[in-house]
Amino acid sequence: MTIEGVFGIVLRECRKKRRISQEELAHRSGLDRTFISLMERGKRKPTLNTIFALSGGLEVKPSFLVQEVEFKIHTRV
Amino acid sequence: MTIEGVFGIVLRECRKKRRISQEELAHRSGLDRTFISLMERGKRKPTLNTIFALSGGLEVKPSFLVQEVEFKIHTRV
Repeated sequence: MTIEGVFGIVLRECRKKRRISQEELAHRSGLDRTFISLMERGKRKPTLNTIFALSGGLEVKPSFLVQEVEFKIHTRV
Repeated sequence: MTIEGVFGIVLRECRKKRRISQEELAHRSGLDRTFISLMERGKRKPTLNTIFALSGGLEVKPSFLVQEVEFKIHTRV
């Protein structure tokens, strides 16, 4: 699994826990819904700026999303 | 200050604390020295993959670098 693939899983999980749609997250974070969909499927590599934008929309710290990726990579989920 | 600008400062500080050159960090992280130089000057936006590569070369967690950026943004340094 690639880093962007793991990030996609983390992003989707985090969004679903908050019960918000891709559309709503797009609106909150100022990104395109299509871009969020591509990231959730591991088809785009997020920049740090994108991670900050998403974390604003998800109301978590950017470093929390990165920690979740680290955790999943280390446990090979 | 932009997010990539703050990241550049964090990257340079972290590299200098470890007393390694841009050349050495490039070698350790599998990136171009020129790319590292551009990032340290805030001229490139790092992807999550790049942050993972750099953190390997710096022997820190990727989330540590992101936490440092959060800290500097919140304290407006």
